[in-house]
Amino acid sequence: MSKGLPKRSEDYAAWYQELVKQADLAEHAPVKGCMIIKPYGFAIWEKMQRTLDDMFKETGHVNAYFPLFIPKSYLSKEAAHVEGFAKECAVVTHYRLKNSPDGKGVIVDPEAHLEEELIVRPTSETIIWSAYRNWIQSYRDLPLLINQWANVVRWEMRTRLFLRTAEFLWQEGHTAHATKEEAIEETRKMLDVYARFAEEYMAMPVIKGVKSENERFAGAVDTYCIEALMQDGKALQAGTSHFLGQNFAKAFDVKFANKDGELDYVWGTSWGVSTRLMGALIMTHSDDKGLVLPPRLAPIQVVIVPIYRGEEELEAIKVYVQKIIDELKRVGIKVHFDARDTHRPGFKFAEWELKGVPVRLAIGMRDIESNQVEVARRDTGEKHTASVDTLTGHILNLLDDIQKSLFNRALAFREANTHKADSYEEFKEILETKGGFVLAHWDGTTETELRIKEETKATIRCIPLQAEEEAGKCILTGKPSKRRVLFAKAY
Amino acid sequence: MSKGLPKRSEDYAAWYQELVKQADLAEHAPVKGCMIIKPYGFAIWEKMQRTLDDMFKETGHVNAYFPLFIPKSYLSKEAAHVEGFAKECAVVTHYRLKNSPDGKGVIVDPEAHLEEELIVRPTSETIIWSAYRNWIQSYRDLPLLINQWANVVRWEMRTRLFLRTAEFLWQEGHTAHATKEEAIEETRKMLDVYARFAEEYMAMPVIKGVKSENERFAGAVDTYCIEALMQDGKALQAGTSHFLGQNFAKAFDVKFANKDGELDYVWGTSWGVSTRLMGALIMTHSDDKGLVLPPRLAPIQVVIVPIYRGEEELEAIKVYVQKIIDELKRVGIKVHFDARDTHRPGFKFAEWELKGVPVRLAIGMRDIESNQVEVARRDTGEKHTASVDTLTGHILNLLDDIQKSLFNRALAFREANTHKADSYEEFKEILETKGGFVLAHWDGTTETELRIKEETKATIRCIPLQAEEEAGKCILTGKPSKRRVLFAKAY
Repeated sequence: MSKGLPKRSEDYAAWYQELVKQADLAEHAPVKGCMIIKPYGFAIWEKMQRTLDDMFKETGHVNAYFPLFIPKSYLSKEAAHVEGFAKECAVVTHYRLKNSPDGKGVIVDPEAHLEEELIVRPTSETIIWSAYRNWIQSYRDLPLLINQWANVVRWEMRTRLFLRTAEFLWQEGHTAHATKEEAIEETRKMLDVYARFAEEYMAMPVIKGVKSENERFAGAVDTYCIEALMQDGKALQAGTSHFLGQNFAKAFDVKFANKDGELDYVWGTSWGVSTRLMGALIMTHSDDKGLVLPPRLAPIQVVIVPIYRGEEELEAIKVYVQKIIDELKRVGIKVHFDARDTHRPGFKFAEWELKGVPVRLAIGMRDIESNQVEVARRDTGEKHTASVDTLTGHILNLLDDIQKSLFNRALAFREANTHKADSYEEFKEILETKGGFVLAHWDGTTETELRIKEETKATIRCIPLQAEEEAGKCILTGKPSKRRVLFAKAY
Repeated sequence: MSKGLPKRSEDYAAWYQELVKQADLAEHAPVKGCMIIKPYGFAIWEKMQRTLDDMFKETGHVNAYFPLFIPKSYLSKEAAHVEGFAKECAVVTHYRLKNSPDGKGVIVDPEAHLEEELIVRPTSETIIWSAYRNWIQSYRDLPLLINQWANVVRWEMRTRLFLRTAEFLWQEGHTAHATKEEAIEETRKMLDVYARFAEEYMAMPVIKGVKSENERFAGAVDTYCIEALMQDGKALQAGTSHFLGQNFAKAFDVKFANKDGELDYVWGTSWGVSTRLMGALIMTHSDDKGLVLPPRLAPIQVVIVPIYRGEEELEAIKVYVQKIIDELKRVGIKVHFDARDTHRPGFKFAEWELKGVPVRLAIGMRDIESNQVEVARRDTGEKHTASVDTLTGHILNLLDDIQKSLFNRALAFREANTHKADSYEEFKEILETKGGFVLAHWDGTTETELRIKEETKATIRCIPLQAEEEAGKCILTGKPSKRRVLFAKAY
């Protein structure tokens, strides 16, 4: 159990790492850069998965599964794509081990070398578009709206649990369309789905925008994204949706006959979110006492801790509590009764606080007599007493209130930490002293973007979709600019 | 669409392959031995997953996720385990590609060689038990009841869609216990869960048994299994549950302090089912016209085909059918209205027959007048008329009846194709002329088992748990035997 967490104000990175570990969310695997997602962490991810999967299906998508391995030659077919991923590919070269000649363990069998090396998928555009070539002949086969839940591998040297790992879990949507307009509409629709999930379920406000050319997905015409602001003033890209144009259709020769019988290349999109969202969730809400979970994603929404002396009292409380549990479950609330007799209430309070359970009920003999319970909310720490007779409705309202109030708190934080900079000096000062999002004018060139990045470590997170037109001058070059873009240091 | 299927009686293997392809279940991937699970096939697998996952959770298990890669040295720690898997391991040796010197595509960067090669998991005992070492200190940490849904890779030269592929999807449960008895109880409990899933959801009767030493999982003390009989008289192992003893605890030094404070090795189990179940499902029920799906696993349970001339009639039917659809959906029936105006009813009938939808409704203008629909069941091909007023209850009963009747038909088939053999001659004759399961006496030695396998291609599928004691003589050696075991040629 908790040895206490480092304070966020003193060492944010250490706080994050210790929290992930002590709250039993994940740990480092023996393979460098890989992680083990522990049951409690995985239960949160499962809730995210289930919610997103429902949202994808409501918008007409179906799931499928494509292979883990991509032939090396496939990856090379789209020039920008291979350029973007070549440096982080795990490569399978052999398909057999054999006993070591010295009798100690096994070695790779040099005779079992693959004719063509296989890449462990870093993303699946190439393998999927090679299949689409056979699946699409006519406009009647379109649109094709497919999603996949899978593991992917991008070799990373500097890793951090959930935020950047060599292997991670994600979903990747890959759609094919008859027209450019329809593909762009799909790209934007899925961006909206991601934004809605982030705000309504994760209680995490996001800014929707489009990436600059330099930050674009390797192989995309346009990359849309949602960007969130973490408590330490750094930005986190929480999801991306790519308009692929006809790039992959051309690379894999995917054509269709339109209604007039003419052949044309298919238009594509791809979009994904990953276990990185777990990192975003943790860093948006949690505090120095541990995890804070929004009720809609909490595996346990209400925990009940009995306050008793001796077995007889515990038994009496068990009987009393059962009808509360039944009633809460009946309306769909996830409730856990912590009846362990190996730990004291104070220990249990600290543990559930660390694990971010939104609501804690404490019940002792005196509460039974007065037909009341003590209710504590995790987000504010506030306690109050509630009547058992009206408890279910009360808890439903409370969970709803916590969900909204987490969102509002995060939104207020973001607003307080979004600044406008009108000169390069001001820009650098904000980044050094305050951090957060900085809205500033930019001349639209990659050259300027890269120089700003080199000098300040801030990158263009996105050109916000809702950015108002505003004539201005680039903070670095003074060249004219039509709207402010969103800068920040980022995860 | 269907070019017609080969007949099962003429070429069972070709029938299977064509059915998988034409019913849009799966196809071969460009990587040898790997498959693409297409949306319709994946929708069936999702139903299996969801059902099994609920059953695992009801029995107290939680999900987690462990890494795809296993360090080579880990695999070697359990001697029997590495012996069993070394010959089919995909090995990652490099972590980067670079541009080819000739400017054409990319090559593996020889400088990016891993210090220790990584194995793409063929199963996860080793990586999981290495984590359990840190997770388990005391009896209070036990039992640990964890499941994982994942992809695994076992390099195979001769592959068949769903039945044997280099990469497949599965779940693997890995549990840890304080006592031998409890671990054995868990092994048997999960075998029962698998048997219940096979019989109640897949409508596939299975025989529960224990494997002979020769067929045991590499690293297990005992392997329990469920065995099913396919229509061509070959057996299929549909799920396994392993009692691991303390083998992996010893290999990874996983000890716990018991209630008396004494240190002991932990007892383990593991159990899994895979996308192979898709092959079993197909081969248990389907016929020369296509797939036959049990209602409880069918992504579409009822399809409605309108019979009309001209757009006006189609519109009238659409309006009429909407209330039927709403009513069926209300009680949880998965219904699809095939309103395509690009295909004729006959074409649609054949397509849904090929795809195994359990119930088809056809509705034309005359049906509307008489307030009736034509109902056709896929399993028997029978048609009848039903009143729209009582349709929902009628369909619910019908789906239930189809589910039961598929099971009974498969059970009758198995019973008709299970034979006793009392001599080696008889044994060989049954295998050559009839196939199916053969119950015969065996002397209990691996030597005899292997000779029978070599001479007849039949293997011991299992020693049935319900086998009655019966004194007899081994069909090959004449040595005494206490019970018959189950032989068959197998997938």
